[in-house]
Amino acid sequence: MSAIYTLDNPVFRDFAIHSTAVMLKTLAMGPVTLYYRVRNKAYCNKEDTVWVGEKGAKPVLDDEDVERSRRCHLNDLENIVPYFMIGIVYIAARPKPSTALWHFRIFTASRFFFTLAYMIPLPIPSRGFGYYGGLFTTLSMAYTIIKEALNHV
Amino acid sequence: MSAIYTLDNPVFRDFAIHSTAVMLKTLAMGPVTLYYRVRNKAYCNKEDTVWVGEKGAKPVLDDEDVERSRRCHLNDLENIVPYFMIGIVYIAARPKPSTALWHFRIFTASRFFFTLAYMIPLPIPSRGFGYYGGLFTTLSMAYTIIKEALNHV
Amino acid sequence: MSAIYTLDNPVFRDFAIHSTAVMLKTLAMGPVTLYYRVRNKAYCNKEDTVWVGEKGAKPVLDDEDVERSRRCHLNDLENIVPYFMIGIVYIAARPKPSTALWHFRIFTASRFFFTLAYMIPLPIPSRGFGYYGGLFTTLSMAYTIIKEALNHV
Repeated sequence: MSAIYTLDNPVFRDFAIHSTAVMLKTLAMGPVTLYYRVRNKAYCNKEDTVWVGEKGAKPVLDDEDVERSRRCHLNDLENIVPYFMIGIVYIAARPKPSTALWHFRIFTASRFFFTLAYMIPLPIPSRGFGYYGGLFTTLSMAYTIIKEALNHV
Repeated sequence: MSAIYTLDNPVFRDFAIHSTAVMLKTLAMGPVTLYYRVRNKAYCNKEDTVWVGEKGAKPVLDDEDVERSRRCHLNDLENIVPYFMIGIVYIAARPKPSTALWHFRIFTASRFFFTLAYMIPLPIPSRGFGYYGGLFTTLSMAYTIIKEALNHV
Repeated sequence: MSAIYTLDNPVFRDFAIHSTAVMLKTLAMGPVTLYYRVRNKAYCNKEDTVWVGEKGAKPVLDDEDVERSRRCHLNDLENIVPYFMIGIVYIAARPKPSTALWHFRIFTASRFFFTLAYMIPLPIPSRGFGYYGGLFTTLSMAYTIIKEALNHV
């Protein structure tokens, strides 16, 4: 039985590639929010408002574009983090590499689609497909873990 | 010395089961928030307000039930994510399985209790017990990691 | 080839120490926020306002100190969580221990500096150095993962 958590295990390798991609997407939301803060002059901290160039400028906490970007970012954390944590344990349940790969693909595609649907925005329920696509993939991996882990009790 | 990160290691197996349970609880906060958004017609995006059925309906960003659910969700991320990350490293410190299991149990029970105490809500300081129960478990694991890791320097 | 995810691997050991330190810092933001809530009597839940000691006291959701602490906490989650996830996979790419150690050091120092710069606060662009110091370290690890993982396809 070969080692589980090495790049020689195709399941771990595929998880590494897909997770890194979706994490980089999440990290990109920071600069996206910053872009809207600069464009709309919607800084959230007193000390940042020196960049607005108006004396006594106040922080803006309800800019629509900024808040949309922040909600999208938070939704990423709410979904991608549990996916990663459940995913890394899922690898130890030794799923078939092809089954695992489809989980990683569907999750990653769902989250990229979610981001587009949220930021453009596309009419509802578009972004719901991205959200539930990701959620059900994670639930499916969680089911596999519980089943396998209970087999080892 | 057997492998650490396999379901044959009881510490990893117990971590897998408890972490998956508490992650599923966290993921469930998404649909809970959605339930309150629908019930209270408190959608956060312009494009979602078509479901309210009133022309020109505005996003609602301060609904009490929705915001409570979102705060509970964020508190989960703030606490369960560090628990998971510290926990997965803690396994490498080779704690006694029974010691580890009690950490996982107390953490998991604390977070389920926290959620109930926050959402019902129970009078303070009820939810504090859930919060600190989880926090101290995590701190105890962190202490074990640092002690063991410095032994290996 | 020795095992990757054990404290005998210096890369994993150094990751364990630095990640635990930066996670504890993140966890500390909870009590920091609570400190400001108590000091400024800015409780966010109806049931908490009994501590204000005034009948009919209302939740306060826009206290400047509290919101600053919460933004700092959320920024930690947005950046430290992807760092950890990318970092744990990065270890499997078998980087040189000294290269890895510098990544962990720069990231950890950046995030501690970011927190100080945000909470004091220091004039901009101080906290930008902390933010981008952390971000580029994470991007560098992500690049290593993708390169190594594609080598194993």
